[in-house]
Amino acid sequence: MISVGVIGATGYTGSELLRLLLRHPNVILEAVTSRGESGRRIDELFPGFTGACDLTFSDPSKVDFDRCDVIFFATPHTVAMREVPNLLAGGIKVVDLSGDFRLKDVGVWENWYGQPHTAPELCLEAVYGLPEINRQAIKSARLVACPGCYPTSVILGFLPLMEADVVDRNALIASCGSGVSGAGRQAKITALLTEAGENLKAYSVSGHRHLPEIEQQLGGVDGTPVQLTFVPHLVPMSRGIHATLFARLTEPKIDLQTLYESRFANEPAVTLLPNNVYPETKSVRGANSCQISVEQPMDRGTVVVMSVIDNLVKGAAGQAIQAMNLMFGISEMTGLDVIALSP
Amino acid sequence: MISVGVIGATGYTGSELLRLLLRHPNVILEAVTSRGESGRRIDELFPGFTGACDLTFSDPSKVDFDRCDVIFFATPHTVAMREVPNLLAGGIKVVDLSGDFRLKDVGVWENWYGQPHTAPELCLEAVYGLPEINRQAIKSARLVACPGCYPTSVILGFLPLMEADVVDRNALIASCGSGVSGAGRQAKITALLTEAGENLKAYSVSGHRHLPEIEQQLGGVDGTPVQLTFVPHLVPMSRGIHATLFARLTEPKIDLQTLYESRFANEPAVTLLPNNVYPETKSVRGANSCQISVEQPMDRGTVVVMSVIDNLVKGAAGQAIQAMNLMFGISEMTGLDVIALSP
Amino acid sequence: MISVGVIGATGYTGSELLRLLLRHPNVILEAVTSRGESGRRIDELFPGFTGACDLTFSDPSKVDFDRCDVIFFATPHTVAMREVPNLLAGGIKVVDLSGDFRLKDVGVWENWYGQPHTAPELCLEAVYGLPEINRQAIKSARLVACPGCYPTSVILGFLPLMEADVVDRNALIASCGSGVSGAGRQAKITALLTEAGENLKAYSVSGHRHLPEIEQQLGGVDGTPVQLTFVPHLVPMSRGIHATLFARLTEPKIDLQTLYESRFANEPAVTLLPNNVYPETKSVRGANSCQISVEQPMDRGTVVVMSVIDNLVKGAAGQAIQAMNLMFGISEMTGLDVIALSP
Amino acid sequence: MISVGVIGATGYTGSELLRLLLRHPNVILEAVTSRGESGRRIDELFPGFTGACDLTFSDPSKVDFDRCDVIFFATPHTVAMREVPNLLAGGIKVVDLSGDFRLKDVGVWENWYGQPHTAPELCLEAVYGLPEINRQAIKSARLVACPGCYPTSVILGFLPLMEADVVDRNALIASCGSGVSGAGRQAKITALLTEAGENLKAYSVSGHRHLPEIEQQLGGVDGTPVQLTFVPHLVPMSRGIHATLFARLTEPKIDLQTLYESRFANEPAVTLLPNNVYPETKSVRGANSCQISVEQPMDRGTVVVMSVIDNLVKGAAGQAIQAMNLMFGISEMTGLDVIALSP
Repeated sequence: MISVGVIGATGYTGSELLRLLLRHPNVILEAVTSRGESGRRIDELFPGFTGACDLTFSDPSKVDFDRCDVIFFATPHTVAMREVPNLLAGGIKVVDLSGDFRLKDVGVWENWYGQPHTAPELCLEAVYGLPEINRQAIKSARLVACPGCYPTSVILGFLPLMEADVVDRNALIASCGSGVSGAGRQAKITALLTEAGENLKAYSVSGHRHLPEIEQQLGGVDGTPVQLTFVPHLVPMSRGIHATLFARLTEPKIDLQTLYESRFANEPAVTLLPNNVYPETKSVRGANSCQISVEQPMDRGTVVVMSVIDNLVKGAAGQAIQAMNLMFGISEMTGLDVIALSP
Repeated sequence: MISVGVIGATGYTGSELLRLLLRHPNVILEAVTSRGESGRRIDELFPGFTGACDLTFSDPSKVDFDRCDVIFFATPHTVAMREVPNLLAGGIKVVDLSGDFRLKDVGVWENWYGQPHTAPELCLEAVYGLPEINRQAIKSARLVACPGCYPTSVILGFLPLMEADVVDRNALIASCGSGVSGAGRQAKITALLTEAGENLKAYSVSGHRHLPEIEQQLGGVDGTPVQLTFVPHLVPMSRGIHATLFARLTEPKIDLQTLYESRFANEPAVTLLPNNVYPETKSVRGANSCQISVEQPMDRGTVVVMSVIDNLVKGAAGQAIQAMNLMFGISEMTGLDVIALSP
Repeated sequence: MISVGVIGATGYTGSELLRLLLRHPNVILEAVTSRGESGRRIDELFPGFTGACDLTFSDPSKVDFDRCDVIFFATPHTVAMREVPNLLAGGIKVVDLSGDFRLKDVGVWENWYGQPHTAPELCLEAVYGLPEINRQAIKSARLVACPGCYPTSVILGFLPLMEADVVDRNALIASCGSGVSGAGRQAKITALLTEAGENLKAYSVSGHRHLPEIEQQLGGVDGTPVQLTFVPHLVPMSRGIHATLFARLTEPKIDLQTLYESRFANEPAVTLLPNNVYPETKSVRGANSCQISVEQPMDRGTVVVMSVIDNLVKGAAGQAIQAMNLMFGISEMTGLDVIALSP
Repeated sequence: MISVGVIGATGYTGSELLRLLLRHPNVILEAVTSRGESGRRIDELFPGFTGACDLTFSDPSKVDFDRCDVIFFATPHTVAMREVPNLLAGGIKVVDLSGDFRLKDVGVWENWYGQPHTAPELCLEAVYGLPEINRQAIKSARLVACPGCYPTSVILGFLPLMEADVVDRNALIASCGSGVSGAGRQAKITALLTEAGENLKAYSVSGHRHLPEIEQQLGGVDGTPVQLTFVPHLVPMSRGIHATLFARLTEPKIDLQTLYESRFANEPAVTLLPNNVYPETKSVRGANSCQISVEQPMDRGTVVVMSVIDNLVKGAAGQAIQAMNLMFGISEMTGLDVIALSP
């Protein structure tokens, strides 16, 4: 059994981690912390856990993390970078769901996050936790930086094109839509049902923190930089990301369906859909799954890829557990065989 | 292992049954039938099953049901009453999710459904599949009639008051709201997002088929007839029922919280919430759970009970599996420990 | 022309007032105030006003209200009771959309609002602004207290029964659902799309501030106190209230349809629907209209009334303008002939 | 006064036309036809019209259209092309909201619609009813072909770039999202709240009928063909289109904000938003307005344009009335000064 701690479990990513960890056959939940909710029963804050969870939130300053084999950080950025060095020094593995260790270039991180990084030496060590590109590295990692939700959907969608080197790397486009849970469990007027419901809008068009993360990973495929135009949209639903990707083909005769099928044939969390079938976010709601379609409309020079995930599962909590499974040598999808909830 | 057949699995109740049965540790899915979709892969119709289900829909006329220990009917009414007698004669148990066998009085059934009943002799034998009142009878039943979704929420909510005989049985009121999946997976203008979204309305106010079912069960507690005014509403969400129940107290000094707590203390699928905490449908979405609160506003003579379920789980597929578990002597909540999906 | 000021226009009630006042043929908007948004263009905060409104928010401390014939308060409670005495002294009429002057009994007000009332002498003078019961009094009022949203729907629904004295006044029940805009334009976790979407729940069951307001008005019909059990629910939509009302008939032979038809025949903002047609909130979205149905299910002793309004229009801003029209002697529905927006 | 007939008013486009025409100060509604609903009161089918409309649907075969100055077709395609020649011959003007006369090249039309065109001689005569590019031609037109909803948002968004000739015309991309009303008021499973709610998906990726329409108009700016990749998405809301447009700049030093501001400065139905403000569909819900932003993310070579409309108003009924106003020499926005309904 794996002894697990979760730091910062009062947000949507944290509660989704709990939902999955509570049903994971190899996991013992040792501690779930929250500064603000310390001492409160978890099922009081999240009544959906009634009957499934007898734990209370602990004050992180009073928890003896030495009992844990692995700690998940489901915290806002800057928390993990302050706490992780001590934990690693104590021999505890870390899976960080925040943005603290996703960027290799500390200068880029400091530019996008607007402050100094307090553990720059760990940025290079941290393994980017996308099993579809880093499976072996994750297995031996001490510190895994879980990909952001948009990056997961966008990188998986572009991956076969990058690896096959068949598109113009300087003219990539990602038009993505996310459910409102991507904004977190925070009181914000823009996320009210009255504002976000029955509404569609783009945001962060001039620059979003997930942009350097995606460009780093796509460029990393063979070391050549890429240029992506990335436009996220807020969609009136709770969960789900749909990425619609565009690229100019430099190799027009490629059989895209076969390229994608073969790339993902052995990936347990990725499904390529048949020709002319397009993915829907609802098909992966609650599931650790990415469904992808590829299309070349009108047989012209632009390829369109559609990629869907549940932002809280394959885009966060599920992917984090997938990494943990790899780190502890158990079957990669253990505890992640949840079927999507639809309708 | 229990060999299971599902007849009519293209609706929401049927697909929810599949979602749960596919993860049930004691179940082998032998056959899933659909007249209209025969020969089609199930995960083609329901892409959320991709990777979890390799079955195709079978033509019911070509399936050898003898391999099955139990058959679930997730069909419109009148299908089960035609097929069930043969299956029972062949020694196969039946769990019927339709309305065919819920009413004991055949005349009442024929009046509300507007046609003759073709298997009236089974109406009395059929066990009303609400474990909270019929646990023992379900264990030995050949034929279980699963309760309707509204009746499940309403009966569980009123049950302690009826058993304690502390309210006026002639002035019961149930004001209930249901998500649109209660209307089934059928092309209807009134269920379009454009019509049912951003809208609230009552329907079937002059009489709904679930009314005689509820009155039968509530009256059955001690044989005294009850009179219920039942108003269902269509709510702009996919899943969930919220029942708000009102009754006039005849015994004003009763400790309602204690009455309800003790009644449901040992019920694995029912939770009484603490004082001043009210249930939400979201807390049980996807879960085989009923959450209940009881309140006596302003200490006046009217008791208010709130009761929530997922109409497709505790209100249909989950409750059907709970009954199956009892019929086959396995632990009642096997395969039903799914945690609610929220947000 | 009527010179109008609006105090506190950054909430949903305030912006709805602006939407209607900007198109009112007899109104000049003199000043729109907001402490927090002072100096900002209104169409910057509310981009839907682009092209229709060139005003900026004013600091209320710097506005000369003497130019105004009438001031609307769209503020949280306690603001109006502090400001109104001075305005009235200056000969300016006031339409208050907050709860400050709705209750005649100051002690009751102080009990429900938990603080002293600073203008108790005005509570009796203030006219309860429901034209359907107070049309004449509104015409000559200096100060109108606009009804709450739930009270509007509930009082109009019960009104014919109260006036005809045909139900048990001690066992009234109102089960109501409101869209999330009823919670105001405030950052609250419970009103997030992720929380309030795909969810239904009751709230304030033990007591809601609209309860004494409703009981005061229903009792006021002939001075006999009434007892109401009032349960509000939060419904996953932006706008709309649906009130489902229950009462025990003491006069079983009454022709309810005729009673309601005749009562509302000359009311420009109330429509009685035909037999067996039930109202939907969508039919009045954006409109200053209340649609009502009455039904006696199964010809038993309980009458069911359904009543829908747009909580921001007939439940707030529209009704306030209806009162203003009466106060200034112009046709009651001037500026209020907006057709509902559907779908 | 203009005598108006509406053919086919039982869909969403038709009912939106009625909502606007009923409040148009220069319009008399002579006849509203529907084959299926002939003889039924309009406010019975659409209860939101209660009190605003006393008309009944007429059988089109029994209406004397000679009384009409203009006829609107809000019908499925192929109806108008059969009826229009006779009406024009009778001296009646026609505004067609269907797709029958939008394409100049009859061969292209027949290819995309899969059938012969029965009035090919009118395709060249018909004026494409986008006032922002065809204002003068509309004024003198006998037959106006109203633009599709997606084309309106996409063409207006790309227009300044095309006219200034500053982007690569062969690599245009439009990633658009539409509310479900775009699918019409038809019983379809994919448009159910249970299917389309809490879901996001692309559709018609391999080719959509609006593609040739957009390419025709964008190419028509200077006669040079363009190539567009167009991906529409179904968004879980009732109304609204958000177009996100991408193009490669061939003239990198252009001041885009100024280009767009000057292009739309005198357009009554188009608003360019300030720098760094992005449009939302909610801001134009119910309004005859297009709001647009332009952005050059990271100062790279790709321009991003965001354009929002209400698909039923500026994307259909409102634009049709804008055309009618021009055809009859009255002020272009008469009857169209409705403020958006938000929240």
